[in-house]
Amino acid sequence: MRQAGRSLPEYREIRGNGSILDAIAQPELAAEITLQPVRRHNVDAAVLFSDIVVPVHAAGFGIDVTPGTGPVAEHPFRSQGDLRRLPPLTADDISHVTETVDILVNELPTAVPLLAFAGAPFTVASYLIEGAPSRTYQHTKAMMHTDPDLWHDLMERLTDYAIEFISAQLSHGAQAFQLFDSWAGALSVRDYESFVAPHSTRVFSTLNERHADAPGIHFGIGCDHLLESMHAAGPQVLGLDWRTPISSARTRMGSDLIVQGNLDPALVLAGANIALDGAAKVLSDNGGHPGHIFNLGHGVQPDTDPGVLTEIVAFIHEQTATENPPS
Amino acid sequence: MRQAGRSLPEYREIRGNGSILDAIAQPELAAEITLQPVRRHNVDAAVLFSDIVVPVHAAGFGIDVTPGTGPVAEHPFRSQGDLRRLPPLTADDISHVTETVDILVNELPTAVPLLAFAGAPFTVASYLIEGAPSRTYQHTKAMMHTDPDLWHDLMERLTDYAIEFISAQLSHGAQAFQLFDSWAGALSVRDYESFVAPHSTRVFSTLNERHADAPGIHFGIGCDHLLESMHAAGPQVLGLDWRTPISSARTRMGSDLIVQGNLDPALVLAGANIALDGAAKVLSDNGGHPGHIFNLGHGVQPDTDPGVLTEIVAFIHEQTATENPPS
Repeated sequence: MRQAGRSLPEYREIRGNGSILDAIAQPELAAEITLQPVRRHNVDAAVLFSDIVVPVHAAGFGIDVTPGTGPVAEHPFRSQGDLRRLPPLTADDISHVTETVDILVNELPTAVPLLAFAGAPFTVASYLIEGAPSRTYQHTKAMMHTDPDLWHDLMERLTDYAIEFISAQLSHGAQAFQLFDSWAGALSVRDYESFVAPHSTRVFSTLNERHADAPGIHFGIGCDHLLESMHAAGPQVLGLDWRTPISSARTRMGSDLIVQGNLDPALVLAGANIALDGAAKVLSDNGGHPGHIFNLGHGVQPDTDPGVLTEIVAFIHEQTATENPPS
Repeated sequence: MRQAGRSLPEYREIRGNGSILDAIAQPELAAEITLQPVRRHNVDAAVLFSDIVVPVHAAGFGIDVTPGTGPVAEHPFRSQGDLRRLPPLTADDISHVTETVDILVNELPTAVPLLAFAGAPFTVASYLIEGAPSRTYQHTKAMMHTDPDLWHDLMERLTDYAIEFISAQLSHGAQAFQLFDSWAGALSVRDYESFVAPHSTRVFSTLNERHADAPGIHFGIGCDHLLESMHAAGPQVLGLDWRTPISSARTRMGSDLIVQGNLDPALVLAGANIALDGAAKVLSDNGGHPGHIFNLGHGVQPDTDPGVLTEIVAFIHEQTATENPPS
């Protein structure tokens, strides 16, 4: 469950009030934050405590994450000259992240894999171009259409960042990865296919070549209209938010589709009974299919009762114990 | 084009800085604001200047629209007792709106029909329950699941409001209507079907009985996953935002589907060339099908260049002149 940490008192105690990037820069702290929800909820995998802008920040673009607002770039990406601010990502740039991975691989129980994490090129590009969280993606869409060469140059760089960032985490022992295209759902199918899909496809094809054993998960919010395209980009697993029924996704993309999801996080806020009922409906929607990673359909809300999350995990383990007997 | 007025200098000049509800309360002013984009852009229909919360405000629930924020209710709807704040809507409550319609029917060219407008029960309910614009709809979803009786009681009242509000506009001479379920896209298919569809269906079935000649349009943002359900609710026309290709909608819901849409408003912000190219792609996606009302796929952004909107309208008239010869 992504962002499960932020609902925990033990997280708030050690996290501090500054930029998330400051916390990510401290390997011992970042590892501890990654471990907290694993210890408390007994989940089956750990998701690296990270942020979508970590690689562009590490490469020196000039971006920070303002608490309560999100990623903010004082000088947004608007012209050819800004490409200079995106030099190739080096191992040194992200040594704090690979150190965190080293600690986690050592401390996590062997049965609990670590999931690598990176933002997809489009979503990172939208933060660089808008300079702040946006509802319309006005400047991003304008650049796609008015200067497609510059757009694709930018996307090439960000694709390289995503590949190198995930590859480093996998080389240090992460066992699977998630590519988050959080805001791709703002695009029409036509724009996604023309301006985004080729780049996200390169992320998956390159990583599949380099790390054949590490499955990739592709996810975005409100992407129901893009699911076929996001699936075609080459992930082994398609993340679903709560909007799309798992059964509909398999009708559309094949009965062997492997999915992650998709309990509505708002139902988790409504108390244990509603949350467990919702979790049961997700399992029922999946119908005992082996290709299902149970998860929320989006990140955990900060004001979630952690006790409800623990109950959900126990319930899922209990319900699926007979489906997947321990070997 | 909805909200076309707010990009116009002549609108900003007469609108004032207060709540939109104050402007709507003045029939001469509301009629003038409705007419401004018709005059300037030569569009084929007028959309009544109104707001989703007009009927609940008129009935005395206690809600206002804060400029820059949106609808705010100091005392949100949270319990059975709050139903008292939603008495039946009377003709007197909304006499300012029917007066506006009277003026418009008199002033609009006979070839330009007036479209009635109302918020759908779910979207209005979400504002009443949350008390302010929300990203998670946490309290709304909690009420659906923890107190479905209260939820449906609330939805029954809001369904009556939508019916009476639209019916009054049609009785005074509006010739079609739009039911806006702006935020329904936040719901899973399952929740939409259980908690929303029966009520929106009643809006369309009752209005179809009372006003058989007035076609209804059903629209929401990010509702790709709900389109089949929203179509089944009974509108004559399905509004599409820019995400869903018109051709895909007809593949899914039948080749005779009548649609409204769906140029991305962000492309209109990118200048005339990009906007006209986008408009041409919408027409091409429609493929000359007679069941298409060209529109943006969402409201006009306030910082849109009105000149670009005028060019789009002229371009569409030119391109479709041979398809629909004047009789």
